[in-house]
Amino acid sequence: MPQPSCDAVVVPTGESVTGCEWLVDADGCTEESLRSRECLEALCNRIVSELGLHVIGLPLWRRFPEPGGVTGLYLLSESHLACHTWPEHGVATFNLFCCRRPQEWPWELRLRESLGSRHVVVRTVKRGTPALPDTDSAAAGGDS
Amino acid sequence: MPQPSCDAVVVPTGESVTGCEWLVDADGCTEESLRSRECLEALCNRIVSELGLHVIGLPLWRRFPEPGGVTGLYLLSESHLACHTWPEHGVATFNLFCCRRPQEWPWELRLRESLGSRHVVVRTVKRGTPALPDTDSAAAGGDS
Repeated sequence: MPQPSCDAVVVPTGESVTGCEWLVDADGCTEESLRSRECLEALCNRIVSELGLHVIGLPLWRRFPEPGGVTGLYLLSESHLACHTWPEHGVATFNLFCCRRPQEWPWELRLRESLGSRHVVVRTVKRGTPALPDTDSAAAGGDS
Repeated sequence: MPQPSCDAVVVPTGESVTGCEWLVDADGCTEESLRSRECLEALCNRIVSELGLHVIGLPLWRRFPEPGGVTGLYLLSESHLACHTWPEHGVATFNLFCCRRPQEWPWELRLRESLGSRHVVVRTVKRGTPALPDTDSAAAGGDS
């Protein structure tokens, strides 16, 4: 069986004025955990609490009919957290959009503990400044 | 003044089993539109209707105290749509996560019409398969 692994990949963008988004994809998760709203809600609540984020209102949760999975959406004062699962593929995805840069979080460890994931990819994307490498000058342009 | 421009960038990933996400960042938007929940709600509803998406439950909306902007979150049967604005920077961001690939949508035109944006960057990211170029084999691994 492959060892769990985690790949952190920074998608190259320019400096952001607004925030950073984590795109986290996990596979090899147990079907049972990916069908369990309780399990996923506990995991999302742990993300929120351990990163010191602030939830506004009630999160939206939906468990889809089989073979579908579960979706959760949290509106945060820092932006949002989204979770989707595909039990039939053993896959879970998370988006954490944060208008401040939080400390690092042990995605691989936590997803392995909660979902039994065997492989986790963490990508970070700067958001808000359309300053991709070839568009820095255009993005930086004001009214000039 | 720079002409409006749109950059479509595909972030390289492997084949996805679950879906595609659009990361859309716009700048040069009018402060007034970025403070208006009504304007942003009309725009998000247009995205949903023109792409034939299906909203589940009531969207979450929050208008933050000035200088803050507006956040909207839609739980979709296809995954989710999120919108954040930073009026003080003229910036709006959208995430559209879709477990089926919808037709193309004229992001640049629509955001210019609705928000007055001068520059829009559209990135697409395949989600769900941790199959970045150097991890294809690990992601494809089963129990062997």
